[in-house]
Amino acid sequence: MKAEIIAVGTELLLGETVNTNAQYIARELANLGIDTYYQSVVGDNVERLLKAYKIAFDRADLVITTGGLGPTKDDITKEVAARFLNKKMVPHEESLKAIQEFFAKRGLPVNDGNRKQGYFPEGSIILPNLVGTAPACIIEDKDVKLILLPGPPRENIPLFETHIIPYLQKYRDKAFVSKTLNVTGIGEGQMEEMIMDIIENQTNPTVAPYSKARAITIRIAASAPTREEAEKLIIPVENQIRDRLGIYVYGEGNISLEAVVAGLLIEKGLTIATAESCTGGLLAARLINYPGISSIFMEGVIPYSNQSKIRLLGVKPETLEKYGAVSEEVAGEMAEGICRVAGTDVGVSITGVAGPDGGTEIHPVGLAYIGICMNGVIKIKKINSSGSRSRIRNRLTNTALDLIRREILCIM
Amino acid sequence: MKAEIIAVGTELLLGETVNTNAQYIARELANLGIDTYYQSVVGDNVERLLKAYKIAFDRADLVITTGGLGPTKDDITKEVAARFLNKKMVPHEESLKAIQEFFAKRGLPVNDGNRKQGYFPEGSIILPNLVGTAPACIIEDKDVKLILLPGPPRENIPLFETHIIPYLQKYRDKAFVSKTLNVTGIGEGQMEEMIMDIIENQTNPTVAPYSKARAITIRIAASAPTREEAEKLIIPVENQIRDRLGIYVYGEGNISLEAVVAGLLIEKGLTIATAESCTGGLLAARLINYPGISSIFMEGVIPYSNQSKIRLLGVKPETLEKYGAVSEEVAGEMAEGICRVAGTDVGVSITGVAGPDGGTEIHPVGLAYIGICMNGVIKIKKINSSGSRSRIRNRLTNTALDLIRREILCIM
Repeated sequence: MKAEIIAVGTELLLGETVNTNAQYIARELANLGIDTYYQSVVGDNVERLLKAYKIAFDRADLVITTGGLGPTKDDITKEVAARFLNKKMVPHEESLKAIQEFFAKRGLPVNDGNRKQGYFPEGSIILPNLVGTAPACIIEDKDVKLILLPGPPRENIPLFETHIIPYLQKYRDKAFVSKTLNVTGIGEGQMEEMIMDIIENQTNPTVAPYSKARAITIRIAASAPTREEAEKLIIPVENQIRDRLGIYVYGEGNISLEAVVAGLLIEKGLTIATAESCTGGLLAARLINYPGISSIFMEGVIPYSNQSKIRLLGVKPETLEKYGAVSEEVAGEMAEGICRVAGTDVGVSITGVAGPDGGTEIHPVGLAYIGICMNGVIKIKKINSSGSRSRIRNRLTNTALDLIRREILCIM
Repeated sequence: MKAEIIAVGTELLLGETVNTNAQYIARELANLGIDTYYQSVVGDNVERLLKAYKIAFDRADLVITTGGLGPTKDDITKEVAARFLNKKMVPHEESLKAIQEFFAKRGLPVNDGNRKQGYFPEGSIILPNLVGTAPACIIEDKDVKLILLPGPPRENIPLFETHIIPYLQKYRDKAFVSKTLNVTGIGEGQMEEMIMDIIENQTNPTVAPYSKARAITIRIAASAPTREEAEKLIIPVENQIRDRLGIYVYGEGNISLEAVVAGLLIEKGLTIATAESCTGGLLAARLINYPGISSIFMEGVIPYSNQSKIRLLGVKPETLEKYGAVSEEVAGEMAEGICRVAGTDVGVSITGVAGPDGGTEIHPVGLAYIGICMNGVIKIKKINSSGSRSRIRNRLTNTALDLIRREILCIM
């Protein structure tokens, strides 16, 4: 089965919106073992949408559109599909009733545009939308299946999960299973080198590394007549990769580094407090995004000024004077200080020059120190990074999370 | 000029990557007054890329690709373009030299793949890439201009800004000027209602509202024979919108709310400190992303436990006992406390239930209080929001920034 995804909407062509729908659907199709050969984006324009349908029907046997099912005159995806396939638009009583009820509940009148949302190309399979007024539909036309989904992710994702995945599962020729390993603390190139022979020698499963904003991932994907067989193919390759990469692999699937760290802290019953200068709360904010963190996260401080470092953490004025705020010595006193004042098992400190200004020869932009105090032992790591202020700060936060993770794993 | 953007990369077809490049380029083209009619995505496959070129050359006169200029065998965008246009690949001495230097600096050997990056279709205009090893190029073929850009945004954005925008400016048929107003503190629907007649009655300039993650924006776009005339068309419409929306408009263009707030604080010489519970450093982290904030941002605290609220801010144990940590009273004592201990002009506090668990009937998930202490006066705002933990925390951070902005504007 060859799929094509068409996103319909002038806002995409104007660059006002990022096409996250294409990514979501592409990933789900990949998980189903369905190949997507093309994605396209077209505006709310009858002639150009007709042409997009023509091209897609010529080169794919599964066409999925997103957008253009709304109540306004600009919403034409369904109507143009009917015209392209030479089908009449007919009312669907259940959908019309659901739309009526949707508005009645909110005390709003139903207009012609809303009623239009209850009309579909003749012969469509209609899929109810529980969070909006635009039902989805499937049109089976000779050799091509056309699936029309609404644009908002909060509507099309539940529709895809509830209706489209089970519908497509029937057409898979084979089971397709994939697994993602998340890697941190190492560069993409370095990691590739460590597993290059595995990447190159594998065809089923395939092994593919990807670099993301916050992590490097490795996707292992296998196909086989059954799901069980595909899963079995993955195991030895996964083990081989894990053996090579060791502690660099921090988790599987969609889990974030902060969730892994928070989980480890909770599991070990270790309380934590943070003292951040240049990252200014990014580390604490990421840990605190983990629900249930309150049992172990006690406090954070952002001692941006030297005064604050002295008052909040007991950093010695002479240390600041002698070594400067961005130094191994200050990072150590900050980590020790936050542990002491907050009375926690773990204390983490970050101090650095995030730029773009404020760098000197001794303390250039990108220089930073991360301190970890655990069981009274203080370890300091010196970091040199580059890029924008925001990139430097995000990298430091990642590195700090990874250092906490490693320290906990060492004591396990 | 009709443009088409082609993103080349199997990772996009697998849904491993979001196509932010298409959005960036589409927006820049819109700002130049160049219409994009289609976007497409195709994998690293010779035959399918050839077909994508064919389709794009038939329907556009400006084709821009991203991706596939790297050193690996999978990187074929340039080679397939040469084949499609019947051009030879020829070495470009300057680029080859730059690549050699790039690797020499890093003490790494240059391989054949890297050298391939210095070859281009004959007759190309070559644009040096200062942050990577893949130069971009422009091929002018009869009626179609083909621009090939590398995939990583940190490489293609500087290339687009430095070389492509000036190059395309020559081909605009008319001047096209747009201006974006950023709005906060009001819902999208409510804002639309306030300016609906302006949106509906305008054709040049057009007025279009968009809802983004952190703000609502209104784009006013005008075209005219000259830039000056287009700018003149925008002024009365912008004034009318600003009159209607008043304080809800916080800035223009790409400026973030935190940059506006940081700018106001610096301009007024007001020092600030933050005390965040459920947002856990998000507010401080956003303010601190503003370079030069160190002159006015003194410190932040994240008193996540009740103990920390008492010790760090002097919140009274009996207030916590009587009203609970998520209360007007505690928000007030936190705001006053952080002002006092940090000795700043402005103190901001946030306390709330971010969920998904931990809600009660009296303190449901989404309930929060934001306190602002300024010149000894404390103001508290009660907030009820809904959604995921991360959505609630981001909204609270936005609201806190907006409240600081309004307080400063009031004293101006």
